[in-house]
Amino acid sequence: MKQYRVIFHLDEYNGVQITTLLKNIENLITDLGENNVQIEVVANAEGVNALLKRPNSHTDQIVKLADKGVYFTACAIAIHQIGLTKDKLLEPVDIVRSGIGELVKRQTQGWVYIRP
Amino acid sequence: MKQYRVIFHLDEYNGVQITTLLKNIENLITDLGENNVQIEVVANAEGVNALLKRPNSHTDQIVKLADKGVYFTACAIAIHQIGLTKDKLLEPVDIVRSGIGELVKRQTQGWVYIRP
Amino acid sequence: MKQYRVIFHLDEYNGVQITTLLKNIENLITDLGENNVQIEVVANAEGVNALLKRPNSHTDQIVKLADKGVYFTACAIAIHQIGLTKDKLLEPVDIVRSGIGELVKRQTQGWVYIRP
Repeated sequence: MKQYRVIFHLDEYNGVQITTLLKNIENLITDLGENNVQIEVVANAEGVNALLKRPNSHTDQIVKLADKGVYFTACAIAIHQIGLTKDKLLEPVDIVRSGIGELVKRQTQGWVYIRP
Repeated sequence: MKQYRVIFHLDEYNGVQITTLLKNIENLITDLGENNVQIEVVANAEGVNALLKRPNSHTDQIVKLADKGVYFTACAIAIHQIGLTKDKLLEPVDIVRSGIGELVKRQTQGWVYIRP
Repeated sequence: MKQYRVIFHLDEYNGVQITTLLKNIENLITDLGENNVQIEVVANAEGVNALLKRPNSHTDQIVKLADKGVYFTACAIAIHQIGLTKDKLLEPVDIVRSGIGELVKRQTQGWVYIRP
């Protein structure tokens, strides 16, 4: 288990929140060191739109961060409500039963919460 | 004491935040099960406006969630500043000395924090 | 060590978020008592702009709160990206390596998180 475990909560779909999120993650890895921090991004509500396959600079950056060990998850309920399917999401994204449930379970396990 | 205890922080008064909040709560109860999760919504600043008696779909949903055991609280300081009184609030809402104080005390007791 | 330790996360630069933040802090001190609560404000991303020397009611209030023991920190990475230097910041502000790193370290030490 790494020293620091962090969940980021992404629940909007706008350029500002996603840009801030990705910068936050880069900075956090630089500050604490890749080996010391475990990161999960939980997307729910409109936030799941940020994890769709759609070639742009955000998706490139998400795939690069996933390669570095950042774990991206999307809320099954939001995906269903927006009318998406698993194959529309970027390769490394996993689906969780509910985004809020995931945030609650992780925090209860001792992960810390950041809302960008 | 239930396995999961969650405080939701409502500090804006706009349709998007309140709709997201109520969806979050529904999904959380579905995911974790009504018997496993204790939920409190803390409204402060402009967020207290969401808890006023005003017949609409939000207030109906708030009353239904309260019947299911979700606890709604409003910040006394915000209520005073906005010029409201207790009788203007929905029946099940309780007043706390300060919304932020409530959020701090609950988290210090081990509750986890979600800001929709 | 005080009974309650709280970090506030400031990552936007708009009048609403900064006004809400400063009110939150005032109310929290009133509610819990100055001797019982230790407060740190962590500014990152555009939030660091709120801590610049610029005579207005916000900066006056920040200096007053700092005199009362509230600790204000700004993210070094954000300061660099915006092209600022230490001397542009209000006197009592300290610089931290990264705002998100600070938020993660504090929470891991048991501080609670509020995002106004």
